[in-house]
Amino acid sequence: MKVGKVFLVGAGPGDPKLITLKALEALEEADVVVYDRLIPTDILKKAKKAELIYVGKTKNSHTIPQEKINEILLKETKEGKRVVRLKGGDPYIFGRGGEELIYLREREIEVEYIPGVTSAIAVPGSYNIPLTHRGFSSSLAIVTGHGSTTKDSTIRWAELSKAVDTLVILMGVGRIEDIVNEIRMDEETTVGIIEKGYSKDQRIVTCKLKDLVETVKKKEIKPPSIFVFGDVVKIFEMLREGHDNKG
Amino acid sequence: MKVGKVFLVGAGPGDPKLITLKALEALEEADVVVYDRLIPTDILKKAKKAELIYVGKTKNSHTIPQEKINEILLKETKEGKRVVRLKGGDPYIFGRGGEELIYLREREIEVEYIPGVTSAIAVPGSYNIPLTHRGFSSSLAIVTGHGSTTKDSTIRWAELSKAVDTLVILMGVGRIEDIVNEIRMDEETTVGIIEKGYSKDQRIVTCKLKDLVETVKKKEIKPPSIFVFGDVVKIFEMLREGHDNKG
Repeated sequence: MKVGKVFLVGAGPGDPKLITLKALEALEEADVVVYDRLIPTDILKKAKKAELIYVGKTKNSHTIPQEKINEILLKETKEGKRVVRLKGGDPYIFGRGGEELIYLREREIEVEYIPGVTSAIAVPGSYNIPLTHRGFSSSLAIVTGHGSTTKDSTIRWAELSKAVDTLVILMGVGRIEDIVNEIRMDEETTVGIIEKGYSKDQRIVTCKLKDLVETVKKKEIKPPSIFVFGDVVKIFEMLREGHDNKG
Repeated sequence: MKVGKVFLVGAGPGDPKLITLKALEALEEADVVVYDRLIPTDILKKAKKAELIYVGKTKNSHTIPQEKINEILLKETKEGKRVVRLKGGDPYIFGRGGEELIYLREREIEVEYIPGVTSAIAVPGSYNIPLTHRGFSSSLAIVTGHGSTTKDSTIRWAELSKAVDTLVILMGVGRIEDIVNEIRMDEETTVGIIEKGYSKDQRIVTCKLKDLVETVKKKEIKPPSIFVFGDVVKIFEMLREGHDNKG
């Protein structure tokens, strides 16, 4: 029997029009779509002939173990199907795409990577925060706060926060107090917090690093949120003081 | 007279199918497209009714000053036109999009950002190098080597290279010897060099950090190339030893 193929596809930052033409084609031709929580669900309509399998968090915050997802991908592919593995942003930026790639390739399954627009860059950009900017930032780093609660984290917060001009933290809401204690940036550093980027409920809050923990509490910041540390956040503030205000 | 609008659009990493639906729509409706060197030129065909203005490097390596590009964008918009400013990758990742944003907004011109798939992530990914990977890399940084020749560079190479698990350097070919002298990673660190990603002439070369300068010379690495430093490059090597070899 013909063995199928897995497409590791990035769904982009949340706007259904911010997926690539190649991702759209893969969806249209898919037999099965295995998808996560943070994808724009409107694009699933493009997968007209596909069976849809949800493997994201449930309402009770249960998550499906990675091993189980791997097995689903393998099983469907062994049945000869074209499987789209759809992830928010890009599959290889904190998306565990690499684990699925290795698992499948070790079992002789063909895998095609279709990159996506990462939220880490696009969400700040949508609020006039370019992560790099001449004179403001010539280096940027992206990390997750979430990962650092697990034993396999190797984030060197103090060193990292001193080394880069722009620091982006994904999935950091729950651990923001610990993170603030560990990082070593000037306490006057401007921080932008963007909650639910590219959704109708999106908002931005900015503050100084010294006020960050209090601001997150007072403004009741919820996941998913992206934190941006650095002078580039001042570009948002400067343009807001002009005439419009997205936040 | 009606004033136009500027769309700051990311063209993605080079494959014409890796632009977003939103970017495609902006091109189709554009009156003018102002474009750079590193964009997939096939997508310009989608801009059926647009005047095309090239502002990238010429054969003689002359570059159009940023001020001149700003003036072109302003002039066309003042004439009531819908202007697409098309850049390789994402406009805000070393694309000077932020400078154009500020210039235009200070002159009351409406600007819409349409993010793109950045080469910094997609090109390594296309060679089975996920920039983050559980157990291998929980932090990544992106910098340019080019920028560090100018007086406004603030890259702290030694600190940065010690602080992150994965380091990506764009536009570093010409200065790779200086960069290697400044960074402080283990000399056994695996480095992947991807030349002309997403083109028909694409190739990858891997080596240890201690052999990098010699490898760049011997293999005659040319720009545009992307350097990836870190254990994630071993995933490419591991899968290559399986059965296929893209490089």
